[in-house]
Amino acid sequence: MSDHYQPPTDPYRPRFAGIATLMRMPHVPDPAGLDVAMAGVPYDLGTWIRPGARTGPAQVREASRFLRTHNVATGVAPFDLCQVADLGDAPVDPMDNEGSLAAITEFFRAISAAGAVPLAIGGDHTIPLLILRGMRAGGALPAPVALVQVDAHADVLQIGPGFAGAQVNHGTFARIAIDEGLVDGHRSVQVGLRGTQYSADVNAYGREAGVRQIYQHEFEDLGPDGTLAEIRERAGDGPVYITIDVDGLDPTACPGTGYPEPGGLTVRELQRILRGLRGLDVVGADVCEVAPALDPSGATARVAAELAFEELCLLAEAKARRDG
Amino acid sequence: MSDHYQPPTDPYRPRFAGIATLMRMPHVPDPAGLDVAMAGVPYDLGTWIRPGARTGPAQVREASRFLRTHNVATGVAPFDLCQVADLGDAPVDPMDNEGSLAAITEFFRAISAAGAVPLAIGGDHTIPLLILRGMRAGGALPAPVALVQVDAHADVLQIGPGFAGAQVNHGTFARIAIDEGLVDGHRSVQVGLRGTQYSADVNAYGREAGVRQIYQHEFEDLGPDGTLAEIRERAGDGPVYITIDVDGLDPTACPGTGYPEPGGLTVRELQRILRGLRGLDVVGADVCEVAPALDPSGATARVAAELAFEELCLLAEAKARRDG
Amino acid sequence: MSDHYQPPTDPYRPRFAGIATLMRMPHVPDPAGLDVAMAGVPYDLGTWIRPGARTGPAQVREASRFLRTHNVATGVAPFDLCQVADLGDAPVDPMDNEGSLAAITEFFRAISAAGAVPLAIGGDHTIPLLILRGMRAGGALPAPVALVQVDAHADVLQIGPGFAGAQVNHGTFARIAIDEGLVDGHRSVQVGLRGTQYSADVNAYGREAGVRQIYQHEFEDLGPDGTLAEIRERAGDGPVYITIDVDGLDPTACPGTGYPEPGGLTVRELQRILRGLRGLDVVGADVCEVAPALDPSGATARVAAELAFEELCLLAEAKARRDG
Amino acid sequence: MSDHYQPPTDPYRPRFAGIATLMRMPHVPDPAGLDVAMAGVPYDLGTWIRPGARTGPAQVREASRFLRTHNVATGVAPFDLCQVADLGDAPVDPMDNEGSLAAITEFFRAISAAGAVPLAIGGDHTIPLLILRGMRAGGALPAPVALVQVDAHADVLQIGPGFAGAQVNHGTFARIAIDEGLVDGHRSVQVGLRGTQYSADVNAYGREAGVRQIYQHEFEDLGPDGTLAEIRERAGDGPVYITIDVDGLDPTACPGTGYPEPGGLTVRELQRILRGLRGLDVVGADVCEVAPALDPSGATARVAAELAFEELCLLAEAKARRDG
Amino acid sequence: MSDHYQPPTDPYRPRFAGIATLMRMPHVPDPAGLDVAMAGVPYDLGTWIRPGARTGPAQVREASRFLRTHNVATGVAPFDLCQVADLGDAPVDPMDNEGSLAAITEFFRAISAAGAVPLAIGGDHTIPLLILRGMRAGGALPAPVALVQVDAHADVLQIGPGFAGAQVNHGTFARIAIDEGLVDGHRSVQVGLRGTQYSADVNAYGREAGVRQIYQHEFEDLGPDGTLAEIRERAGDGPVYITIDVDGLDPTACPGTGYPEPGGLTVRELQRILRGLRGLDVVGADVCEVAPALDPSGATARVAAELAFEELCLLAEAKARRDG
Amino acid sequence: MSDHYQPPTDPYRPRFAGIATLMRMPHVPDPAGLDVAMAGVPYDLGTWIRPGARTGPAQVREASRFLRTHNVATGVAPFDLCQVADLGDAPVDPMDNEGSLAAITEFFRAISAAGAVPLAIGGDHTIPLLILRGMRAGGALPAPVALVQVDAHADVLQIGPGFAGAQVNHGTFARIAIDEGLVDGHRSVQVGLRGTQYSADVNAYGREAGVRQIYQHEFEDLGPDGTLAEIRERAGDGPVYITIDVDGLDPTACPGTGYPEPGGLTVRELQRILRGLRGLDVVGADVCEVAPALDPSGATARVAAELAFEELCLLAEAKARRDG
Repeated sequence: MSDHYQPPTDPYRPRFAGIATLMRMPHVPDPAGLDVAMAGVPYDLGTWIRPGARTGPAQVREASRFLRTHNVATGVAPFDLCQVADLGDAPVDPMDNEGSLAAITEFFRAISAAGAVPLAIGGDHTIPLLILRGMRAGGALPAPVALVQVDAHADVLQIGPGFAGAQVNHGTFARIAIDEGLVDGHRSVQVGLRGTQYSADVNAYGREAGVRQIYQHEFEDLGPDGTLAEIRERAGDGPVYITIDVDGLDPTACPGTGYPEPGGLTVRELQRILRGLRGLDVVGADVCEVAPALDPSGATARVAAELAFEELCLLAEAKARRDG
Repeated sequence: MSDHYQPPTDPYRPRFAGIATLMRMPHVPDPAGLDVAMAGVPYDLGTWIRPGARTGPAQVREASRFLRTHNVATGVAPFDLCQVADLGDAPVDPMDNEGSLAAITEFFRAISAAGAVPLAIGGDHTIPLLILRGMRAGGALPAPVALVQVDAHADVLQIGPGFAGAQVNHGTFARIAIDEGLVDGHRSVQVGLRGTQYSADVNAYGREAGVRQIYQHEFEDLGPDGTLAEIRERAGDGPVYITIDVDGLDPTACPGTGYPEPGGLTVRELQRILRGLRGLDVVGADVCEVAPALDPSGATARVAAELAFEELCLLAEAKARRDG
Repeated sequence: MSDHYQPPTDPYRPRFAGIATLMRMPHVPDPAGLDVAMAGVPYDLGTWIRPGARTGPAQVREASRFLRTHNVATGVAPFDLCQVADLGDAPVDPMDNEGSLAAITEFFRAISAAGAVPLAIGGDHTIPLLILRGMRAGGALPAPVALVQVDAHADVLQIGPGFAGAQVNHGTFARIAIDEGLVDGHRSVQVGLRGTQYSADVNAYGREAGVRQIYQHEFEDLGPDGTLAEIRERAGDGPVYITIDVDGLDPTACPGTGYPEPGGLTVRELQRILRGLRGLDVVGADVCEVAPALDPSGATARVAAELAFEELCLLAEAKARRDG
Repeated sequence: MSDHYQPPTDPYRPRFAGIATLMRMPHVPDPAGLDVAMAGVPYDLGTWIRPGARTGPAQVREASRFLRTHNVATGVAPFDLCQVADLGDAPVDPMDNEGSLAAITEFFRAISAAGAVPLAIGGDHTIPLLILRGMRAGGALPAPVALVQVDAHADVLQIGPGFAGAQVNHGTFARIAIDEGLVDGHRSVQVGLRGTQYSADVNAYGREAGVRQIYQHEFEDLGPDGTLAEIRERAGDGPVYITIDVDGLDPTACPGTGYPEPGGLTVRELQRILRGLRGLDVVGADVCEVAPALDPSGATARVAAELAFEELCLLAEAKARRDG
Repeated sequence: MSDHYQPPTDPYRPRFAGIATLMRMPHVPDPAGLDVAMAGVPYDLGTWIRPGARTGPAQVREASRFLRTHNVATGVAPFDLCQVADLGDAPVDPMDNEGSLAAITEFFRAISAAGAVPLAIGGDHTIPLLILRGMRAGGALPAPVALVQVDAHADVLQIGPGFAGAQVNHGTFARIAIDEGLVDGHRSVQVGLRGTQYSADVNAYGREAGVRQIYQHEFEDLGPDGTLAEIRERAGDGPVYITIDVDGLDPTACPGTGYPEPGGLTVRELQRILRGLRGLDVVGADVCEVAPALDPSGATARVAAELAFEELCLLAEAKARRDG
Repeated sequence: MSDHYQPPTDPYRPRFAGIATLMRMPHVPDPAGLDVAMAGVPYDLGTWIRPGARTGPAQVREASRFLRTHNVATGVAPFDLCQVADLGDAPVDPMDNEGSLAAITEFFRAISAAGAVPLAIGGDHTIPLLILRGMRAGGALPAPVALVQVDAHADVLQIGPGFAGAQVNHGTFARIAIDEGLVDGHRSVQVGLRGTQYSADVNAYGREAGVRQIYQHEFEDLGPDGTLAEIRERAGDGPVYITIDVDGLDPTACPGTGYPEPGGLTVRELQRILRGLRGLDVVGADVCEVAPALDPSGATARVAAELAFEELCLLAEAKARRDG
């Protein structure tokens, strides 16, 4: 393990100093040789209502300065288990939506092709679709993944001109990912769903595709442990992708997001769920929808960084397991 | 139902666009023909410590842009059940307290006389008294209501010059409403009471009038479901008025209020309580004490808007039931 | 004059109360019969770096509550001179950029066709192009206008995929407006230009088209009065369109904008310039690039509202003059 | 001089430490023996639009921690010249407007009767009237004062129920002070007037009473020195009262106030004016309308503290001169 | 009891008015005659990452204006039980760390020597060590105390030049206090521990010294009541010192602190724990690490004030018991 | 020139994306081969009143994303003239002040020894002393420099334990630099001095050493051009070091600093002064005292970045001149 990258420990390099990278890990532009490739995706052209998540990666990099190396609850030390680095940001041109979608997809294809698993910091909630497309193109997704989605919204809408089909954006990613066979609805669970709805049946597409949709009012009785049981049973031994839209958490914890919905998960509930996913075959993960302009205090990004670390622990353990 | 007002659904009228009205419903200045009359009450001359709730209606209008049409937990679609509109604001002259009290009362009298039930956005917590007076004057309150009050403070003080009697203000409304026979203490419940107190017996007036005062430290053991059971048992089949002072919620959820008291209800707890009131004969409701200057982020107003929607669902169902 | 709309003066309708409209004027959805049509344009899909101006109209409506009826410096009372109202917002679909560009253009065409002059609140700085296109389509622009542009940036770039031609966006509007013959470069002046530049010749397109580009470091010596002299000499008797990107002002006055450039105009300097434009044939005007999430205090929107009032005075006087 | 109070200079009592008092001077509840009595007036019941100045004194006390002892521009050291202390706050009951007006007046009567001159921190701009009334009752105003008023608004309105006469509030103080013979209009000057107006002649009352009203657009040409010349010529040798509504300054400097008007004085201009008043017989002064909730950063209060120090220098020199 | 100090109750001295002291109690610079000596400690030179707690006492004084006199949950009225006052701040020189450590220690020695128990407002979390040293020097700690520490971090690190031994700072106080025999590890409990860790064994020192370290993920199952049981069993009848680092609470409740760790205690949980400590022999207490610049809203300080009041109730009851 | 580093221009690497470095230049940890070495100095242990500047470099890196490549006023393109890079941050241990002072000095010694000139981002205003010491040790300062200091405070105090001599901190740097022969007082100028003073003669040390101290009230008459004339005449042909404490600017432009003094320079005035220094032999420069926690909006850092770019232009031109 001693040959893996580690964040600096020299007392003359305190955590508030130096160039900001994710979790204070080296900035390594090439995924070759990495086990976990952390990267930002400064894309928010898929945002319907309040844009701004394009600067999420920058703010999460700053906030991740607070992170240390060991998971207090599980004992996992991901930087000991794996080679982890910050690849920088995926390419995005804010004046070219179609080009950006393609470029992001290609970026994650290259990561997968290099044998690394992705840990992405959004950007809006369009990006899990692009990551999954990239992973498939890179050969990393022979079968559909189980999606563990933490989110206030199911993201199975039909938004786009003419409403004839679903345009790629942050309200449709899960629908399209199911459509394209990237996600296996029957193995997937959505947690944190809530808020007023557009119609009685707005989330029907997901439900009919087999997704277990745990609404927040149901979660009140189910709790983190009941939720965990359902996720683990459904996900089984197959590959799992974890995506966290920070609006799945309560706006008191994550105010800096485009469409806050009062009455969401606490950080503690979500930490318990994530820590309970140990042993699943997690093959990719992200944290999305941090919109810095809506929370200049950085509290939202601070939470996002903490969640990304939990995801990293899962990714690192799974990777180490697979590498035997 | 197709002839009821609905918020716009045209994709070219997205929710961030257009003149701000409550829940994006039409601005209809005349209550005739309405079932539920939503209105702002930009009054805060009854505030003892930190004024500012007079601009609460404006901020809640903005925040209510996020609301959609269906209640995810109960399935209720209030705009399908009823004719609902935004009447605008009650008349207030900030240089004339007595005149303002009278004008607000008359405003709600006219709503009641027109056959509509009120859903008011404060303004400080003086206004439930004025609404109830107006409802009685308008013929809508033949008997005292059961008061369901969410609040950190019982509002049964004796504030005013000489302390000889209780002046009409935001610390006395419940006392005076009981005094005037507008509220039946024995059918009423207060939830969220907490904070340091002026004396050992500062809330005695309410208790002696029969009000069930659920202090927050008692709520810890009772929970939302135990609270609900008490409310439902007391309220019975008679008319119910719901008033929410946002300081009943924890300051993490609602920092933008005049007298925050750490250690309050979570949004989830209150949502569960409100949703559990289905079937009661709710005849009026309000959300008060949003003070925008104390929370320019709008998070408090966002919560207030969500709670107003829950109240609207209860009002709409009750109204539809009564109209059979 | 007594038959023109006026903001409410009833003491029981104080300026903090009621539905927010521009300058507290009536919301009149149809331009027929109006002299000056005020409208919001909640569009920011043309933003390159930091989006968010789509909610500018909502915040400016709130901030314009502070406005009264008479210009203290010039004595002009625009609501006495003209029929003025708030048309609401132009149609925009945030998931359909091309459709939105067309819809906004059509919105302003209809205003022009109805005989009204536009006063628009952005939205990003793409919109003057769309307004001018709409005015021409509506028959209101027989000849190119003189553009008076207050802005830190000349907006004559070539941004877009492949950089082969200039895409319609907020960095290119002036270039395209000149290209399309909507603006007469030789009669036009840009004020407030500053900041670091992409290259030595990034603004050459405008200069070669005859535009007088007054950089801020030149303005230091020229001053408001020297600037005014140049504008008036160039604009002459022909039609004038005034566009204000709030980043032309110093970020201390207008922090809530996408690309602030330290070292800009003071409000007082710009007020003096705008008031000095009396007598010019102003046929349209706008204030753009207020991004509320970047200034929740509303100070930027407060300035924008004040500037819009100055523009309104110019529009109203010119309209009254034309109508004889 | 060695027997005058001084702020602590012990390095173990740094300026951020200790109980907050005005300018770190002792809290002395009794005016007897003082030359200059500094006091807060936590009153804002006279506010028309946005209340909140009642907590101004508390925030200015905090901000005045930054103040040292010597005026860098004039060399005046007020604590060497005079006995100065912080009396605490005037009595106010937020539930009793009439009683509060009387109690504040009596508070300042007692100060004057004790032979001290007042330096007051508001509170809204009602309070100069109450201070002047108190000074007269205390025997300190044998003749009307020259008023030097820094303000965006002339405060000569007729606000109040029925609009039959002017109610005591923050929009009428100057009118009533002239009416009551407390202020000599012909010796008085108002600086900073601006903003949109209610009518063509809204400030006529003051002008007809002889007040020199320097509008901001006129100030552009007059400058601080021209303004000073006018003030000094008018004020002459008689007693002068200085009142500063912080909205006279530009909102970039003082955003935390109820009715900001873009385009106001800079701090530097006002400093030059105040320093130029040396030699006038200043007998009282105040700084008003700091509304902390509208500027939690404290920047507005920081400016207010600096201006209060400039006023203190003038008061102290004049007092020392009178005492020979 | 009638001869004890009380906060003012005169309606003309409302809580927002007057000089800010802790809980609106008199400022009494001499501890003689006091039972509980409240004091600020404006020291943050022991801060590793984000300084700023030196202004904590000032902000908590302001926030404590909201406090009344009776504990709603326990009925305790501390000002009736004891003589309580605000001593002002301990001496600190920000340019002299060693001198400051000594001066603070001496300050608390004098309090103890005068027979008062301390209630301190930090300042960073170095200060409990200094208080305990002072108490011992003053004769008030014949035996080691049981430490009840609410904190995200165990503060048993070895930070300092050369890392050879533990320097006195806010990451080492508990280690040194155990080392010096001020704290009895076996009777002590730490609550709220969480966050990523520097190593697998970073907190071993405390654990080996017998401290019961309740990590937050363990607290999820233990709850406030289970935690209470452990504290009470360990603390027994001996002396107890309570120290609260506000980062023990969740950052949603206390964002204004140097090293926030998402996923902490709620205010309600901590209130329940503190109230459950009645009957223990509490001999001193503090609330630390409020960093005002990181939360200008004052919400963190508001919570800190409420917690200090809970501590005061425990101190007052214990003191009254001891004085029998 | 084509072989010099340049910031990215690829449209798929927009300025909001990617790892944050100063001016988007490469992060190059070794100064060998550089002409201008940009670096952060995350040190604020020399701060007397309000610490926090240790995170200044991180925030300025973020804010410098807005910078482009050409100086609009002077035409200078520094990245064409020189090899410029971001070295990262100087080593600092917040628990070891003496060690940190030595380490920072050594860091700048190495830069000078490598032949590069430093452009430093503070950190507090102690650091120019350390930079100058490092430059001398590195052989780059054969003679004392002319100091051009923009600052509200002259920094010639005697702060430190016992007050016997001047401790190295942010209130003493200029005094010690003169004492040590690093700065030639007679060739030096301080601009922006203002604020209340500790005594009549607090700045005498500098004046007696020949420094031209331009107080702000004198600057009102002198203006930028008069100031420039004095600087140029004094500095002559010898080496010049420019240091900017952002509190030299007005707090409206730079609120995020430890000791704001209302009434300072505008950005425009300072830009004019800096641009007027072309042709001087500038051998080093810095911008200090950005304290991010006091301005989370980043506006202060935005100004600091712009000023650093102006300094870079001067450094690059001088370097190119020297290199012939």
